[in-house]
Amino acid sequence: MNTALANPRAASALDARLDAWRRRVERELDLWLPPATSIPERLHAAQRYSVLGPGKRIRPALVYATAETLALPLERVDAAACAVELIHAYSLVHDDLPAMDDDDLRRGRPTCHRAFDEATAILAGDSLQVLAFKLLAGHPGAPADAARRVRLIDTLADASGTSGMAGGQALDLDAEGRTLSLVEVERIHALKTAALIRASVVMAAACAEGLEAAQSDALAEFGQVVGLAFQVQDDILDVEGDEAILGKPVGSDEARAMPTYPAVAGLEAARNRVRELHAQAGRLLSAHGWGHSALADVADWLLVRRH
Amino acid sequence: MNTALANPRAASALDARLDAWRRRVERELDLWLPPATSIPERLHAAQRYSVLGPGKRIRPALVYATAETLALPLERVDAAACAVELIHAYSLVHDDLPAMDDDDLRRGRPTCHRAFDEATAILAGDSLQVLAFKLLAGHPGAPADAARRVRLIDTLADASGTSGMAGGQALDLDAEGRTLSLVEVERIHALKTAALIRASVVMAAACAEGLEAAQSDALAEFGQVVGLAFQVQDDILDVEGDEAILGKPVGSDEARAMPTYPAVAGLEAARNRVRELHAQAGRLLSAHGWGHSALADVADWLLVRRH
Repeated sequence: MNTALANPRAASALDARLDAWRRRVERELDLWLPPATSIPERLHAAQRYSVLGPGKRIRPALVYATAETLALPLERVDAAACAVELIHAYSLVHDDLPAMDDDDLRRGRPTCHRAFDEATAILAGDSLQVLAFKLLAGHPGAPADAARRVRLIDTLADASGTSGMAGGQALDLDAEGRTLSLVEVERIHALKTAALIRASVVMAAACAEGLEAAQSDALAEFGQVVGLAFQVQDDILDVEGDEAILGKPVGSDEARAMPTYPAVAGLEAARNRVRELHAQAGRLLSAHGWGHSALADVADWLLVRRH
Repeated sequence: MNTALANPRAASALDARLDAWRRRVERELDLWLPPATSIPERLHAAQRYSVLGPGKRIRPALVYATAETLALPLERVDAAACAVELIHAYSLVHDDLPAMDDDDLRRGRPTCHRAFDEATAILAGDSLQVLAFKLLAGHPGAPADAARRVRLIDTLADASGTSGMAGGQALDLDAEGRTLSLVEVERIHALKTAALIRASVVMAAACAEGLEAAQSDALAEFGQVVGLAFQVQDDILDVEGDEAILGKPVGSDEARAMPTYPAVAGLEAARNRVRELHAQAGRLLSAHGWGHSALADVADWLLVRRH
């Protein structure tokens, strides 16, 4: 891996691709989200506010990168790209609620419950989650084959429920104020973050014809590993950001009580863990001839570059 | 219709059937809800608390009654019966939240956010909704045919999202303190209550082989009409309960501001509306030879008997 980064031209080619994927999924989402002029207007406006605001569209990028890696037409994975982004968007709306993380701002804008109200934010999250499943069942960009649609729905459900994202958020909340082991921290990350990132890769792979079981397994493991590394990297960037702002090294007792890899193991160990997982992800791809692929580039982007 | 009620033996036969359906869906739900001993334990416990507590299981009864009416084996609609109950259970958990109806008790027990905490209640609702879709995708009791599963998922999504239950709840919240017209009240009922009741009938019908379009349409309309009448009847029983408790006739200005049929049109008009819808439901069934069916009995139970 790392090829995209060593070479500035390759990096800017990736930027252009990321932009194209971002525009693509935003256009699709805009098409499928009900208009804010239709009843119930306020709820539809809250859905659109939460989904179509600024976002990196990391999960759709993984869907599209998997499709490119497997030489699949992007049309065939549009429903999957929209579905993972809708689940991500709903989870942010609910995580920001006063009873959860109680955040007033998200990417510089008022959170959904601040811009609208708490009841509307709860319902917006609820109905965005439904829309993800609706798109997989009914979007013309989902695979024509119903058995494949069912598999996508099954995969997304596993990644979103108590065995995935919602379960991870529950463990994260339970962890508040407790000192966790690294194993516990990685379990939270595996559910809260990696499950949906893994699903993004797995769902795109499920849209391909004739993939061997070993290839599917490698892609699933790649998604898992990248998802875990992404969360650790994100927590590292948070700490570095705090250090830059606070002008002091992080590693205080308060930080240690947080369920993050750098807080529990320290910044250097966290950086090593990301490098290790990044290398593992690279080996999984290389073993199947995908060492120089869109998926490898996206992993580099997520795990090495600053964003 | 009304045959089950005119005849006490028929009524007690229906009671036995309702009990059997209730036990059946509760056994299935118990099987499919993750055990409270598995991680995340607290979230799984909250799911079980919210689903397996006392409940009339009206929506599963409609699923099973439709199956009996169409001579379908009940096994084939178990997934649909669980799915509609899971959606109903999640909606109660979220509707009870402080930001919504702010209820401390539900059927004599503390509401989920009181028995656990608000964050857990939000996540329990979120993950119960996912489980409904998961069961339709993966339950062995769903139709073997994937195209049919996709249709069930599509129907349930439409009934749950902004075009259904969540949309109705949003309109209901918006209506607070405003005086509504009867058309507006019925629109709220159609989305908030009738959509999921209609879906219960439609999903069961979608599990049958060789149903004609006219039959499917009649069943869908039956579900819609019964759903609407059920909500009006429920609001009538509320008013009568209040009158019994308060010892004064209801019809005050406060009541008029509520988005219910009796509050807007008065108790007598509401009773007439239920009778009218009940008769319409009966005609829809009779036209297809289902005048004396499990579905007719359940409609009688919902719209005439006190519960």
